[in-house]
Amino acid sequence: MTQLVFPEHANALGKAFGGQVMAWTDLCGGICSMRHSGGATVTAAIDELTFDHPINIGDTVVIEARVNATFRTSMEVEVLVWGESPTTGQRWRCVEARLTFVAIDAQGNRRSVPPLRPENDDDVRRMNEAGDRRAERLARRKR
Amino acid sequence: MTQLVFPEHANALGKAFGGQVMAWTDLCGGICSMRHSGGATVTAAIDELTFDHPINIGDTVVIEARVNATFRTSMEVEVLVWGESPTTGQRWRCVEARLTFVAIDAQGNRRSVPPLRPENDDDVRRMNEAGDRRAERLARRKR
Amino acid sequence: MTQLVFPEHANALGKAFGGQVMAWTDLCGGICSMRHSGGATVTAAIDELTFDHPINIGDTVVIEARVNATFRTSMEVEVLVWGESPTTGQRWRCVEARLTFVAIDAQGNRRSVPPLRPENDDDVRRMNEAGDRRAERLARRKR
Amino acid sequence: MTQLVFPEHANALGKAFGGQVMAWTDLCGGICSMRHSGGATVTAAIDELTFDHPINIGDTVVIEARVNATFRTSMEVEVLVWGESPTTGQRWRCVEARLTFVAIDAQGNRRSVPPLRPENDDDVRRMNEAGDRRAERLARRKR
Amino acid sequence: MTQLVFPEHANALGKAFGGQVMAWTDLCGGICSMRHSGGATVTAAIDELTFDHPINIGDTVVIEARVNATFRTSMEVEVLVWGESPTTGQRWRCVEARLTFVAIDAQGNRRSVPPLRPENDDDVRRMNEAGDRRAERLARRKR
Amino acid sequence: MTQLVFPEHANALGKAFGGQVMAWTDLCGGICSMRHSGGATVTAAIDELTFDHPINIGDTVVIEARVNATFRTSMEVEVLVWGESPTTGQRWRCVEARLTFVAIDAQGNRRSVPPLRPENDDDVRRMNEAGDRRAERLARRKR
Repeated sequence: MTQLVFPEHANALGKAFGGQVMAWTDLCGGICSMRHSGGATVTAAIDELTFDHPINIGDTVVIEARVNATFRTSMEVEVLVWGESPTTGQRWRCVEARLTFVAIDAQGNRRSVPPLRPENDDDVRRMNEAGDRRAERLARRKR
Repeated sequence: MTQLVFPEHANALGKAFGGQVMAWTDLCGGICSMRHSGGATVTAAIDELTFDHPINIGDTVVIEARVNATFRTSMEVEVLVWGESPTTGQRWRCVEARLTFVAIDAQGNRRSVPPLRPENDDDVRRMNEAGDRRAERLARRKR
Repeated sequence: MTQLVFPEHANALGKAFGGQVMAWTDLCGGICSMRHSGGATVTAAIDELTFDHPINIGDTVVIEARVNATFRTSMEVEVLVWGESPTTGQRWRCVEARLTFVAIDAQGNRRSVPPLRPENDDDVRRMNEAGDRRAERLARRKR
Repeated sequence: MTQLVFPEHANALGKAFGGQVMAWTDLCGGICSMRHSGGATVTAAIDELTFDHPINIGDTVVIEARVNATFRTSMEVEVLVWGESPTTGQRWRCVEARLTFVAIDAQGNRRSVPPLRPENDDDVRRMNEAGDRRAERLARRKR
Repeated sequence: MTQLVFPEHANALGKAFGGQVMAWTDLCGGICSMRHSGGATVTAAIDELTFDHPINIGDTVVIEARVNATFRTSMEVEVLVWGESPTTGQRWRCVEARLTFVAIDAQGNRRSVPPLRPENDDDVRRMNEAGDRRAERLARRKR
Repeated sequence: MTQLVFPEHANALGKAFGGQVMAWTDLCGGICSMRHSGGATVTAAIDELTFDHPINIGDTVVIEARVNATFRTSMEVEVLVWGESPTTGQRWRCVEARLTFVAIDAQGNRRSVPPLRPENDDDVRRMNEAGDRRAERLARRKR
């Protein structure tokens, strides 16, 4: 997903407004989770989101998402947002986020998600770390 | 902060779009952090954000924010988002989030934040928990 | 209701665009009238709206509304809009307005509005003045 | 000025949102006042605005503005908003409004407005009525 | 159709963003085709669209559309977009475009369009040129 | 570039509004031309744009752009827009367009564009066809 930062996306400092960047993050993660699960999804949680460097008006925004792990009816999706200078082509990390999406059917009920097939060690590590984060989050909620 | 959910805020299911709710969350938290610190702030991180119940087109959105803890140049702000039915006045929890904002001056440099004065046990508990979350987040980043 | 003025709300002079401020005024008044009457309402008239001081990009906007008077199926709502400086916290009056909202049911027909219970002299004065404005407005319409 | 009502302009009932119609009203009146006065203007007041019939998603919106009267540095502009059915071409009155705009220069100071030259009895009547409304408004403000 | 260029319509250079100008062009052409054909239409093609001079934030945008020719279920509409200086009233050509709209009924099926009645030589010339463009376009599509 | 069609992008028929699709087309082509030329660009013309199948609310929009040919200070960019069903993953062609962008520097003057290096027969064919279209367009303008 690619965007250009226009004045309508900016705060008073001429940078892409934090809430706008979050909205793009959620949108890109949502499309990724819809594609994996073959249907509608809704955002359930942000486990972690950090802003590194801001993006100015006139810069390009590049957003990438991948499914880290699937659970019975939910998925953890990792989203990375970069700023890109139109003159130098240089990229910098703006946001790193992990979001959980729940798959729902036309009645709004949870539906099962096809399991992710890890293809290498990195995939397995991501899956395990996502499982740990989920366990922690559920534990936190109980407290 | 109060809003009405219009079709322009909705996804294809007629509910307020997740990214829109996040943008409102960030905006309300941002205003709260600007008021506490007396100047501009930028979003640094979302430590945790959970979506409970969706909000439909035509419902009112009520958003509240408070500073949980202050650090040298940053603050943890808690934001709660409720849906409210215009006919029954009933409210339900939509989002609970904790965000970190950094205070900046006109040149974009970090500036110090006036310390929060806890007034009761609950305030102290919030401050301590925010400190724990911050320590965990910084530790996670190092790994 | 609180807002931050972003470039997307501004006119070519870097101030919140008059029509945008009116839209916020109407929105806040609309929510207030929905809460009082327990259901949907539509704007019927602006009896009076004055702009005092403009609000710049980067300022906070604070909007308050209260029901001045109820009639059989309509309400007069007073809306005040302030600008607020994020650095000094100082507030100034931007807009003072009186709007009339009509309560409607799901079929779009007028429905009755629960009467306002004045609690002090000021409440009574507001109610009477609103009644006078309404009488004047209906008289003007007949002419 | 012409518009089409899209879902992004609509409230939960599928009609053009009151605040959106006001924003169009202000915009059209603002352009009219800029053209008459040859420069920037800001909205100073709405003396009267009434909503008659709503406009649905899919309908066309037609907005017309004319200067009723000029004062030293301000103008009263009348704005009429109609809904128009795309199938029948039929039009209905949605809004009738009278707004006051103040002419300003690049520094934001008031500048003088070229006088309106009435061409017939109707023009004279409008000018006189606008003068009466202005006197009433100034008197109300003093109270 | 008239608009004012606000920061929300602008690119990073402070000019009305190309895509925004196209959206206004399509909107104005669409309303024109709906009025001629008495019902809903959808954009089928842009045969030609050229940008001449940009329009700055603060300038007025004036958009005009006319039906050049009608075919069985479609129409060619010519749209001209001008910038207009609020201080001098001077106008310059920003966009010249020819778009084809198809008339559809409530089920989304094509419906016939009432024929245009040319009233003078210029009208006949436009009709013929539009017919030539359509033939060329259909031929290009076949290749 | 990827998007989700929300009600805010839709016309009264629940399909992505033609002008919105054009704005996405221009945006994606603009980013592509900025990346190729290493700096700001402005839209100069649409040589041809055809709409095939509409995209509904809830569908995903996929947009791709590539530079067909470079001239001294301009580029022809081809943009394809597809709809994609979130449930079946099936794609259909929505728009095919060819746009010309002009490279400009910080003062708004034309700057030269690095030449495209064709790598295979298809690249050469595209370059030649773009050259033909440009010659035709310039000839048409002279008439």
